[in-house]
Amino acid sequence: MNLKKYLDERRRLVDRSLKQMLGAGGSFPRTIDKAMRYSLFSGGKRIRPILALASGEAVGGSLDRVMPFACALEMIHSYSLVLVDLPAMDDDDLRRGKPTNHVVFGEGMAILAGDGLLTEAFRVMAEGALHAGQDRSAALRAIREIAAGAGAAGMVGGQVADLESEKKKPTRLLVEYIHSRKTGALLRASVRAGAWVGGAKPGQFARLDRYGVAVGFAFQVADDILDIEGGTEKTGKREGRDAERQKVTYPAAVGMDNAKKKARELLAESLDALSSFGPAADPLRQIATFIVERAVQP
Amino acid sequence: MNLKKYLDERRRLVDRSLKQMLGAGGSFPRTIDKAMRYSLFSGGKRIRPILALASGEAVGGSLDRVMPFACALEMIHSYSLVLVDLPAMDDDDLRRGKPTNHVVFGEGMAILAGDGLLTEAFRVMAEGALHAGQDRSAALRAIREIAAGAGAAGMVGGQVADLESEKKKPTRLLVEYIHSRKTGALLRASVRAGAWVGGAKPGQFARLDRYGVAVGFAFQVADDILDIEGGTEKTGKREGRDAERQKVTYPAAVGMDNAKKKARELLAESLDALSSFGPAADPLRQIATFIVERAVQP
Repeated sequence: MNLKKYLDERRRLVDRSLKQMLGAGGSFPRTIDKAMRYSLFSGGKRIRPILALASGEAVGGSLDRVMPFACALEMIHSYSLVLVDLPAMDDDDLRRGKPTNHVVFGEGMAILAGDGLLTEAFRVMAEGALHAGQDRSAALRAIREIAAGAGAAGMVGGQVADLESEKKKPTRLLVEYIHSRKTGALLRASVRAGAWVGGAKPGQFARLDRYGVAVGFAFQVADDILDIEGGTEKTGKREGRDAERQKVTYPAAVGMDNAKKKARELLAESLDALSSFGPAADPLRQIATFIVERAVQP
Repeated sequence: MNLKKYLDERRRLVDRSLKQMLGAGGSFPRTIDKAMRYSLFSGGKRIRPILALASGEAVGGSLDRVMPFACALEMIHSYSLVLVDLPAMDDDDLRRGKPTNHVVFGEGMAILAGDGLLTEAFRVMAEGALHAGQDRSAALRAIREIAAGAGAAGMVGGQVADLESEKKKPTRLLVEYIHSRKTGALLRASVRAGAWVGGAKPGQFARLDRYGVAVGFAFQVADDILDIEGGTEKTGKREGRDAERQKVTYPAAVGMDNAKKKARELLAESLDALSSFGPAADPLRQIATFIVERAVQP
């Protein structure tokens, strides 16, 4: 398979579905509609939805059934970026090369747009779970999974730990605590949700979950590496922004060489978790490889 | 029935369930756990959960099945109060006679605590929907309902319109637009969710929904009246705070006498909607009466 083509196609599918689903439950006031779309359609890679779809695909599930959950994951990711950029958090004025939401719409509207995206994500999932042919229990497990991954025991909790860690010594344990929650939890939930809705059997589910944990961690280690070495053109953020803000990063905790070694180990782990799957899991394999390779390649 | 006793018992039941459910899906970092509990257990009247429970009761549903949705509604209400008090919104430092969340925990943590409560609400509902004996489709309809009522087409959208209306002329149309979304939508969703999960038949559902619309509107008109006439001991807020901030209120739009007349009409409408129900709907009747009477009584 051609990964670039696969990712482009999936991204287009996801974007089309996002446009259809957003606001289908009732009309939004004009300003917040603009603010929500501004962040949701700002050129994201759609990694979480693509992971959910690929996970469902790996167990023979239908794209249509997973799609509402995939879209919801991107809405939640998008809300989290609006949130983390706020003056009361990281106070960032640039995201993916564009002014951040609160810079354009003001702080109050940005907070509301973020919460609008978060809430809409759950409406879209409930709606999708009610579609004909959907296994309601599996869909509810996916909703529960995603809420737990996004909430105070997951992503929101990771952001709390991150806020509280600035200027703390970046030990490996602290970095792993933050990363596993702040980004790991929702990435893992993406894989798990796709597996539930795709109809994974218990053994398959456990293996996909092992993949999700490894790939979620790899993603953040790679992101830390790219923040130092990637340059603005690869990341859309200013280079070295994490160091400047004294963010706790993996390379800062263990050194750059060890961080790259860890990223490679996590890639091996994620591929190993998929060893009993056939070619249906190739997208998952290639996504993991892509995530790690772009960061560790010389 | 004795309404005061009924409300006290329900409030205790809801509080006990909230304590059991909050965080049952994974452990939260200590600070956010404290911040979430600070706002969630600050002496709210629990009107939304009590309405949901009473609505389920009116159609013979079990309390246990409605309870997770009732608790979720209170979590969402609590998040909305944290949100609306923020410096970027109404910038309030007092709520129910206590310092607001961001005053105690800082702005960043308050935003995260609010979003933690919102997300946890959906986890709790998904969890509750998976309980044995629960009708999964009805539960999913309740989740969809509550998400729509809380989101950008509902409560969040109402807050947007409210933000944008300050210093605007308070026409009746503008006030009704804001009220029906900012408070009406979630109150209506409370009644609808209780009806779904309680097992309402279509005809019952339509009548309960008519009640929910009327009581949701009555609630906000009464609240506007109390803000002007109630005094701090009745509201826990400083008297005249709305006028001071040039908030769009119903009495400002139509005059105090007409506002009280409207509140009485809405009470009559909500009682009429319940006319075909027996004594099982008495709590709904008495709640509506209580909401209106405390505001319009001389």
